[in-house]
Amino acid sequence: MQKSGQVITLTTDFGLKDPFVGIMKGVILGINPDVRIIDLSHNISRHNILEASQIISMSYRYFPQETIHVVVVDPGVGSGRRPILVTTGDYYFIGPDNGIFTPIYEDMKSESFTVIHLTSKHYFLPINGSTFHGRDIFAPVAAWLSKGIDSLKLGEEIMDYVKIPSIKSIIKDNRTIKGNVITIDAFGNAITSITKDDLQRLSATLSRDKLKIICKDREVDIVDYYAEAEASRLSAVINSFGYLELFVYRGSASKKFNINIGDSVSIILLD
Amino acid sequence: MQKSGQVITLTTDFGLKDPFVGIMKGVILGINPDVRIIDLSHNISRHNILEASQIISMSYRYFPQETIHVVVVDPGVGSGRRPILVTTGDYYFIGPDNGIFTPIYEDMKSESFTVIHLTSKHYFLPINGSTFHGRDIFAPVAAWLSKGIDSLKLGEEIMDYVKIPSIKSIIKDNRTIKGNVITIDAFGNAITSITKDDLQRLSATLSRDKLKIICKDREVDIVDYYAEAEASRLSAVINSFGYLELFVYRGSASKKFNINIGDSVSIILLD
Amino acid sequence: MQKSGQVITLTTDFGLKDPFVGIMKGVILGINPDVRIIDLSHNISRHNILEASQIISMSYRYFPQETIHVVVVDPGVGSGRRPILVTTGDYYFIGPDNGIFTPIYEDMKSESFTVIHLTSKHYFLPINGSTFHGRDIFAPVAAWLSKGIDSLKLGEEIMDYVKIPSIKSIIKDNRTIKGNVITIDAFGNAITSITKDDLQRLSATLSRDKLKIICKDREVDIVDYYAEAEASRLSAVINSFGYLELFVYRGSASKKFNINIGDSVSIILLD
Repeated sequence: MQKSGQVITLTTDFGLKDPFVGIMKGVILGINPDVRIIDLSHNISRHNILEASQIISMSYRYFPQETIHVVVVDPGVGSGRRPILVTTGDYYFIGPDNGIFTPIYEDMKSESFTVIHLTSKHYFLPINGSTFHGRDIFAPVAAWLSKGIDSLKLGEEIMDYVKIPSIKSIIKDNRTIKGNVITIDAFGNAITSITKDDLQRLSATLSRDKLKIICKDREVDIVDYYAEAEASRLSAVINSFGYLELFVYRGSASKKFNINIGDSVSIILLD
Repeated sequence: MQKSGQVITLTTDFGLKDPFVGIMKGVILGINPDVRIIDLSHNISRHNILEASQIISMSYRYFPQETIHVVVVDPGVGSGRRPILVTTGDYYFIGPDNGIFTPIYEDMKSESFTVIHLTSKHYFLPINGSTFHGRDIFAPVAAWLSKGIDSLKLGEEIMDYVKIPSIKSIIKDNRTIKGNVITIDAFGNAITSITKDDLQRLSATLSRDKLKIICKDREVDIVDYYAEAEASRLSAVINSFGYLELFVYRGSASKKFNINIGDSVSIILLD
Repeated sequence: MQKSGQVITLTTDFGLKDPFVGIMKGVILGINPDVRIIDLSHNISRHNILEASQIISMSYRYFPQETIHVVVVDPGVGSGRRPILVTTGDYYFIGPDNGIFTPIYEDMKSESFTVIHLTSKHYFLPINGSTFHGRDIFAPVAAWLSKGIDSLKLGEEIMDYVKIPSIKSIIKDNRTIKGNVITIDAFGNAITSITKDDLQRLSATLSRDKLKIICKDREVDIVDYYAEAEASRLSAVINSFGYLELFVYRGSASKKFNINIGDSVSIILLD
């Protein structure tokens, strides 16, 4: 039974100069001409599994139910690493078993998702020593799934799927949160591992004058929205995804204050 | 009543590395799975309202009637600036009230367009101190509009919408046009504010030997099409959008002759 | 009779900052609101006909039958060069007659394709000295074709279409293949003109210990897939399109070993 309104998203480190992404779309439309295909990002830093996992983690919920999220950041392609499908009640995720879906596993309770090792080769393109699994495995499997194929026909459930260490903030003695910069966006904003929930555990009211934020030995101004910040000051906002974000209004926090992925950020509850 | 064949275009300064554009598309498809979404540009220079207004101005007419053009270049997001919808007989425009739609106001006669302050929050995503109005306001409102919601249900008409100074050429004493370079495209071509209409007011026949073009104290060759120009000479053509454009055939006028946005260009009618 | 599931692909050197690609899509949807439009690449090096021809050559087969491939890399726009449509049994190709479709001509037997000079101006947008044939000729013709217009109504067959010299490898005395690097992808991998078929003509079994690969006076390791290569060694693999590709695992062969387009690569059959 054909489904309608089905969406497939694509996230890769292929870039947009080469035709690799377009070729994946051609393969998909050859199998299911009616599916909608949306690009999340094709400019993931090469082979950066952590970055890809963050992109998919912040994005997947904004798509219609049953959307199929395909992520191809795959340094181990051609070696023994397994192609997998993760099914949750609401979404599907397809990609290599290299830990890229760790945030999905953490978001779900263990009983509510299934990881399937994709082994049913008749849903793949013919592979002759191919190194392009995006085209030959992930795209066609996503297309067949979008047509309503039962996910259990695509392979066998596995329990030993790969996880990568997740980046969490640490709350110390109820007075201090220690976190890190996890990504720098195209504007030079530094997104940290510290969430709105973390902050509320420290200070339920989120009152600014009770909190002090330190990054790179520098005190950071806390504001409610970008345009409220003083020009060229290092400022912080709870961003629209619920994360503490360091920024400079109309500037680049990363460049101006030399902030990089991994830098530590502390939040201290004042008396 | 569902419309068919509806198109939404997106123009932002978000870039294509972060998943922000993809997320907006996810929100739109969650509301209207049938609408077509087309990218105009996501590489507008950050916070450059003028550049965004030029991009939308040169593009909107080439889309089917009733297309909804969403433009999110929004340095004031989170502050008091209003989200607006502009309706003309043929098109819709959605974005922040920061002057980004000034060329649309100028193209239309005042009686033929309406500016609506978007206030009907039940057509937004839930906003908790969010700074991502592209996702939470502009995308869902565009999607509801594409489903045929009456625009008057989305907010109230306003008259005090923001305009930015427009860049026009000046015709002096019927013998001279003074204009400026308004944008440099990816090829290094310098598009000026001088239009074919301006030129025809000077010389109805557009005969080349009657016109002299000066930029940066340099005389510019006038040709009919790119390939006609002499190699490595600064040349000018009426481009396919009706603007005078300075270029170097198979080269970059901007780099080779150090031409930048704002540089003045003069056209003199010879005897 | 309206066709369903029709696909148009776009390949240009327009880049993604300017709205030119979006405008072409607007024109297409104005004529055929139901056609699917897929981007192959818009970052072809400016005016690089050879690069565009390689991109379309490696991609076209992965799309559904009757897909219309539009390629606009067109240094001669506005001059006398002809706009053409190439029809094969399975696909359509639309673009300038500057040799861009040479690989298609070589893939087909001469009796199985037709080249049509596009002359039926009522299928174009109105052109007033325009230099944007992507918008005014190629996009609307592709859209009309996707609606089922007979290709013979679009112009007249020609036989003197332009070809560019093709890059082939040379097999010498059954012991040596001489080829060249034909493109560098975004990962810094160097794709050569040497195909799997070439290699099999030398050594039917493709056994590694019988073959020696030399590039830049350096011996290259031969492996079966990327992850098998030793770190920071120059290695070679038959890539997923059937070409010999030089790479560095998790690095850039181009940067690390200064490999550029045109560099020669030799394969020697050992005793």
